[in-house]
Amino acid sequence: MPKKHRQQLLTKEIEENPFLTDEELAGKFQVSIQTIRLDRLELGIPEVRERIKMMAERSFDQIRSIPLHEVIGDLVDLQLDKSGISILEIKEEHVFSRTRIARGHHLFAQANSLAVAVINDQIALTLSADIRFVRAVKLYEKCVSKAYVRPIPGEKVKAKVEVFTYVGDELVFQGNFVIYRSHKEMQLRGGKSHADSH
Amino acid sequence: MPKKHRQQLLTKEIEENPFLTDEELAGKFQVSIQTIRLDRLELGIPEVRERIKMMAERSFDQIRSIPLHEVIGDLVDLQLDKSGISILEIKEEHVFSRTRIARGHHLFAQANSLAVAVINDQIALTLSADIRFVRAVKLYEKCVSKAYVRPIPGEKVKAKVEVFTYVGDELVFQGNFVIYRSHKEMQLRGGKSHADSH
Repeated sequence: MPKKHRQQLLTKEIEENPFLTDEELAGKFQVSIQTIRLDRLELGIPEVRERIKMMAERSFDQIRSIPLHEVIGDLVDLQLDKSGISILEIKEEHVFSRTRIARGHHLFAQANSLAVAVINDQIALTLSADIRFVRAVKLYEKCVSKAYVRPIPGEKVKAKVEVFTYVGDELVFQGNFVIYRSHKEMQLRGGKSHADSH
Repeated sequence: MPKKHRQQLLTKEIEENPFLTDEELAGKFQVSIQTIRLDRLELGIPEVRERIKMMAERSFDQIRSIPLHEVIGDLVDLQLDKSGISILEIKEEHVFSRTRIARGHHLFAQANSLAVAVINDQIALTLSADIRFVRAVKLYEKCVSKAYVRPIPGEKVKAKVEVFTYVGDELVFQGNFVIYRSHKEMQLRGGKSHADSH
């Protein structure tokens, strides 16, 4: 592949998935990590850690349903009642001792807490979920969860949230959550906007 | 209700659910806790803590799929490829700071690790689950999970495990898990019995 073409594809790839590491990109383009680094340097694209930090610093909505420290993983983007992104690095305490594979409940916890975090209400409780563990996640892999709130027409107290968790661009977990939400506080305030309660 | 009748029902109730506390039984029969205690004394039924200890000491199968310490909660009964029971007391570290309600992923972790523990194989991985949080669980409540392996005719690598979690006799969580299991080790050993590998 000519360098120019690769650099175009690389730019597009990183725009679509800013969480890809140089190593993952190198594997994708079948070139050395050093080549990716030089490409980024020429294109002025910061390294993955820097890109994540920039996303985290970008203004995003204030979480309402739970305190920020109760989100499992690092919240890097939040658009209330729309979408959210969190990152969880799999460490020693997350894996089975025998297989070094991440225990399912940690992936579930990341996805579930993100599904609650995206809800624009003071009260949000998980009612049900159907989940799939698509492939085993290994020690030190970085799990990027993306949650999307799907509107249910006419529904006021339940929200459906779809969560997709990736390592690189590989789907490792998918879950559909039904969340109970309460507008009580709004009703008490006579239907004033959410912004009041900040 | 005459005393004799109540004591008959009480005996039956405790046989069916040995984890019921005196307080829960008192509520059930609409009598004082003292009355339940005297009934138990007359009937020679030990208190709940003693009953749980007896169950735990009763010979039960050796867990194979994960080390015992990786089961979330205390395993009190295990019949491999049939059923299992574990108990998890909800402590400070399990609840949301605002509401003092147990976080969903802890109930999920208890149920999921029990669903894996009942599998009679060295390798057992959760593939998918559908779960329902039936009612909120509060601080210090004791969650009793019961898992049942449901045979899937003709199926060799997947097992279906149903898990029901109760506080007292109230269902608080229900989950259906599909677990991947590997008989590889057995095949390598020429189909010898599982007992070989202990």
